[in-house]
Amino acid sequence: MEAPPTPPPGAAATSVQHRVPFYETDAMRVVHHSNFVRWLELARIRWLAEHHRPYPEYVAAGRHFAVIRLELDYRRSVAFDEEVTITVWPEWVRGATLRMVYRLETARGLVAHGATDHALVDDEGRPSRIPREERDALRKLCASPVPPGAHRA
Amino acid sequence: MEAPPTPPPGAAATSVQHRVPFYETDAMRVVHHSNFVRWLELARIRWLAEHHRPYPEYVAAGRHFAVIRLELDYRRSVAFDEEVTITVWPEWVRGATLRMVYRLETARGLVAHGATDHALVDDEGRPSRIPREERDALRKLCASPVPPGAHRA
Amino acid sequence: MEAPPTPPPGAAATSVQHRVPFYETDAMRVVHHSNFVRWLELARIRWLAEHHRPYPEYVAAGRHFAVIRLELDYRRSVAFDEEVTITVWPEWVRGATLRMVYRLETARGLVAHGATDHALVDDEGRPSRIPREERDALRKLCASPVPPGAHRA
Amino acid sequence: MEAPPTPPPGAAATSVQHRVPFYETDAMRVVHHSNFVRWLELARIRWLAEHHRPYPEYVAAGRHFAVIRLELDYRRSVAFDEEVTITVWPEWVRGATLRMVYRLETARGLVAHGATDHALVDDEGRPSRIPREERDALRKLCASPVPPGAHRA
Repeated sequence: MEAPPTPPPGAAATSVQHRVPFYETDAMRVVHHSNFVRWLELARIRWLAEHHRPYPEYVAAGRHFAVIRLELDYRRSVAFDEEVTITVWPEWVRGATLRMVYRLETARGLVAHGATDHALVDDEGRPSRIPREERDALRKLCASPVPPGAHRA
Repeated sequence: MEAPPTPPPGAAATSVQHRVPFYETDAMRVVHHSNFVRWLELARIRWLAEHHRPYPEYVAAGRHFAVIRLELDYRRSVAFDEEVTITVWPEWVRGATLRMVYRLETARGLVAHGATDHALVDDEGRPSRIPREERDALRKLCASPVPPGAHRA
Repeated sequence: MEAPPTPPPGAAATSVQHRVPFYETDAMRVVHHSNFVRWLELARIRWLAEHHRPYPEYVAAGRHFAVIRLELDYRRSVAFDEEVTITVWPEWVRGATLRMVYRLETARGLVAHGATDHALVDDEGRPSRIPREERDALRKLCASPVPPGAHRA
Repeated sequence: MEAPPTPPPGAAATSVQHRVPFYETDAMRVVHHSNFVRWLELARIRWLAEHHRPYPEYVAAGRHFAVIRLELDYRRSVAFDEEVTITVWPEWVRGATLRMVYRLETARGLVAHGATDHALVDDEGRPSRIPREERDALRKLCASPVPPGAHRA
C-alpha cells in the first residue's frame, strides 16, 4: 500500500468532514497521531450507515466489528481548526473479516492514508462468521467482489 | 511482521507496565483500539529516557520524533483494570528515520504487536537528518546495525 | 447554578451539534464524563469565531484562554450516535477573566449544564489583563455588562 | 471550596502518582484541562480498591458510580513528563450519592483541586440507593459521618 489509495471504480465510498478541535492537538502543535485512528472510525461508522447498516444496530444486537489490524501512513501534520476529509471504502470481505481503506485530505492535499481489518465479534469478543447474506451485500460494495489471494503483496 | 515479534539478541529493549484506566474502555466493554497507539508512545518515551535521551530534552530543543507510519495487529481485547506490559525496541535506524517494534502482553498472553516509523522533525514539522553521532548511538541499540534492504518483505 | 441555565436576553449565544462517536463511549455504554468537558470547548471555540475572534488567531499570537475553573452538572447519560446540542454564552467579563455558561441537550431533553472560567495567558502560561478594547467588546456580548458582586452565591 | 482542600483528620485518603504522557498535552504545550478529569478517576478507582471494593467488581455486577457533578479549580499548568500526585478522599455519603474531594500536586506545589459527586446507577443508568451496609462502610471513611446541611454554602 505504498501509493496513496483512491476509491477504485465500483467501490462504495463515503467521505466525512472533521474540523480539528483544539483538544486533538499535542505539544508539537499539531494533531496527535492517535487521533487519526479515531478519524478512521468516524468515517467507517458513517460508511456503515450510508451503505450497509447503522452501527448502533450492530451494537444493540451485541455485535461489533472489532479492529484486528491497523495501518496508517502519515504524510503531513494537521493543525488545529483545519478541516480534514476522510474517505473510506471496503477493499475485500472474507468469511469472518473485511478490510476498509482510507484516504485523508485537507485543503493542502493528502495528509494520511491507511487501512483497518475487522472481525465480527459478539459482546464477549468471540469472533463469528459474517452471515452469508450480509457478506454478499458487503462484497457488492467492494470494487472487486473476490478477495485477492495475496492482498498485501 | 506476521509472527509476533520478540526483542532480538543485542537489541536494547524497555518494558513499561500500564494498568488500564476505566476511561480507556469503550461500549464494547474493552479498551478502545486507539488507546493501544498511545500505549506504544508510553513505552517509546520510556525507552528514549532509558537508552538514549529523555524526550523532554528533544521537545525543549524544538525537535520531535514524528510518527510517519503505524502498524498494529490486535490479537486479544484488553479489559478495564488489566495490567498491560508494553515492550519496545528499535529495529533499524536510517539517515532520517528509525523503526520501533512493540509487543503487548497481559497475564493472559500476547494482546497485540506493532511497529512505528519515525522521522526527526523540527518545531515547524520540517524533517531533518538524524545527526551522525546520534544515529550511530541509536544504531548500537538495534540488534543489527545495518538497515535491512527489504525490511518489510 | 442549580437551575439549568438558558441564555439570558441580550447574551450572544452559539449552538453546535455533535454526533457522539463510538470512541467517546466507555464500558458503562454511554459517553465518558470527561468528554463533556471537550464538548464545552467545541462550543466555546465556535462561539469565539462567531462573536469575537477565531481562536486560531489567538493561538498564533501566543495567547490562550486557559481554563481556571470548571463546573459541570450531569443530568442524563448520552449514548453512541446521539446528537448533542451544546449552547454557550458569556456570563461576565472581568479584568483578566471571563465566564462562559453551557447548556447541553439531546432530543431527549437537557443532559448537562455547566460553566468555565478563563484567564488570558501567554505562551508561557503567564496571565495578562484582557486589553480594554477586547474586554469592552466581550462585555457587550453578555446579558449584563457588570460582573455581579456575588455571582456564585 | 475556595481554599485548596486537604484530607481532614479521620478521612481515608489515597494518593496516586501519574507521569504525564506526551499524548495528554495540547498545543498550549501543557496538559489539556480535560485530562485532569481523567486523573480524578484514576485516583478514585485506586481509592475504591484500597478502602472499599475494587471497581471492576462493581462493573461486573452491573453497577456504576456515575458522575453527577464535577468541579475543578486549575491553579497551575502541568507539563509533559511531570509527575502529578492526585490525592482523594470522601467528603460525605448520602442515601444515593457521595462526594469525593481531590488535591493535585507536582513538585512545584498545588496544581488543581476539585470534587466529584456520584450516584450509584445500574447498567441501564437507573439510580438506586446505596445499600445501607455499604453506605455505613463508606461513611466511616469520611472525616465527618454526618453530611453537612449546607455543604456547598
